[in-house]
Amino acid sequence: MNEIKIFSPATVANVACGFDVLGFCLDNVGDDMIIRKTNKKGIHITKIEGYDLPYEAELNVAGVSALAMYAAIDVDFGFEIEIYKNIKPGSGIGSSAASAVGSVFGMNELLGKPFNKTQLTEFAIKGEALASKCEHADNLAPALFGGFTLVKSISPLQILEIPSPDDLYATIIHPQIEIKTSESRAILPKEVPLGHAIEQWANLGSLVHALHTSDYKLISNSLNDVVVEPHRSQLIPKFSLVKEAALIHGALGAGISGSGPSIFSLCKGLEAANKVREAMQNVYSKTDIAFDIHVSKINTNGVKII
Amino acid sequence: MNEIKIFSPATVANVACGFDVLGFCLDNVGDDMIIRKTNKKGIHITKIEGYDLPYEAELNVAGVSALAMYAAIDVDFGFEIEIYKNIKPGSGIGSSAASAVGSVFGMNELLGKPFNKTQLTEFAIKGEALASKCEHADNLAPALFGGFTLVKSISPLQILEIPSPDDLYATIIHPQIEIKTSESRAILPKEVPLGHAIEQWANLGSLVHALHTSDYKLISNSLNDVVVEPHRSQLIPKFSLVKEAALIHGALGAGISGSGPSIFSLCKGLEAANKVREAMQNVYSKTDIAFDIHVSKINTNGVKII
Repeated sequence: MNEIKIFSPATVANVACGFDVLGFCLDNVGDDMIIRKTNKKGIHITKIEGYDLPYEAELNVAGVSALAMYAAIDVDFGFEIEIYKNIKPGSGIGSSAASAVGSVFGMNELLGKPFNKTQLTEFAIKGEALASKCEHADNLAPALFGGFTLVKSISPLQILEIPSPDDLYATIIHPQIEIKTSESRAILPKEVPLGHAIEQWANLGSLVHALHTSDYKLISNSLNDVVVEPHRSQLIPKFSLVKEAALIHGALGAGISGSGPSIFSLCKGLEAANKVREAMQNVYSKTDIAFDIHVSKINTNGVKII
Repeated sequence: MNEIKIFSPATVANVACGFDVLGFCLDNVGDDMIIRKTNKKGIHITKIEGYDLPYEAELNVAGVSALAMYAAIDVDFGFEIEIYKNIKPGSGIGSSAASAVGSVFGMNELLGKPFNKTQLTEFAIKGEALASKCEHADNLAPALFGGFTLVKSISPLQILEIPSPDDLYATIIHPQIEIKTSESRAILPKEVPLGHAIEQWANLGSLVHALHTSDYKLISNSLNDVVVEPHRSQLIPKFSLVKEAALIHGALGAGISGSGPSIFSLCKGLEAANKVREAMQNVYSKTDIAFDIHVSKINTNGVKII
């Protein structure tokens, strides 16, 4: 096999109470990529469609993660990467993670799978760091493993696969505004009241238990973020209205996807998720902000060959 | 049935990363109590052995929780309570919780179980509040439900029963020193660095997952407290040495039990727990501090009729 086409999915990180550690994978939103062996050694990005991104491997997220893996192998050939980017960079649904994951997953397949998924995450972290200026894996892990993942620690890298009920759907609205990474960082509190921290870890522990036991009511009760959302939601126009509309129309919970501006909600069943889609888009339809909206089953497989 | 004898178990709260929310129940350490119907209306504490505690119901933890339940029922009789106290008050293994739970559990049995365990916890919280000056349930919940419990919230009261592997044992050493509640409170930070809070909830989420999946290695990896232990451990002589000795001799993890001074460790198997017992007591044997030490299987039943 000399060429492979893959689908690298979008992901939702943080998931309300799981700031910086929890994430889940989407099913029908993501990038396509082609990875190809070539006689020319090194990593070569040969095509980028969808968004304007750099072709120099060391300046491109998919290129940097590919270079990290390439440095760990000893081969007399190289790889070409074609990127068909559907996830808008900066949307808050793991655009850079999809790129970082896609190249290393594809290369690993062409090499006969010498690396496991945790090792692939290690390479992908290097790419992700180019985009977000820090090493984190809360989008990478669900893109690679699928389903819900908890990044227990970065060093050493420990990723836990948390089971989730079959009938869980996400609705994500992406308002087409730009939030500067620097701004969404600066607005984070450096210290949090102990009481808020306790509430947050009670909710996260509870959410993990609820996912294990397929307890939708408890999933709903646990999807609260008292630490980050009160700050970052200020950067997202109509956040409270969208969240309220989602909850009123049956969402189990809603919150900021990653560092925003996308807003996610979780629902039991496709019908509920479609109702919530309507409710969320009704809020933004009354503004002059353009938006995308997606309904997706939780993708339990992650990145895949197509 | 007019009289019942019960065993009300000791418990370990906080469990390293689960400050204020997590707890587990011990098997062979606890108080005995007799609850008896009597013609004389009201709650009457008629016997206390073991420790010097007040006989006035409204000044006694078991009495206050009993009075809370008594106010919620309409009966033409009263209850007598005998307390055979084995758990030293202030030891950090849920002495007041055992008292608060015992009276309401026993009364509920004599009444034909009109209340469920969550309702019993509500009553017991009133008794616990007398001892600890605030309403919390992290010792009450495991004493009533058994096993590991996560108190998701106090208002409304939500208690989750977390499964745990069969072969999990605890070793607890109780150095006979007094830590004033006011001191152990005052030493807590009011604010915590966001990074520490994230590490703590990553560990708690991970511990809940590890308990669900009987993953001993992950239980071990998750038993870290970066928020409270660095402060409160200063109040416990030889804490670091005891913890280190436990870990060196095979404990999965160790930490402060409740607000101390007891120190708990968790082990896979009785043999390991006994080795850790020896290692922990060796540390205190070299001091002039008296101590008790217990090895116990996790008690998955909680308070029971004997």
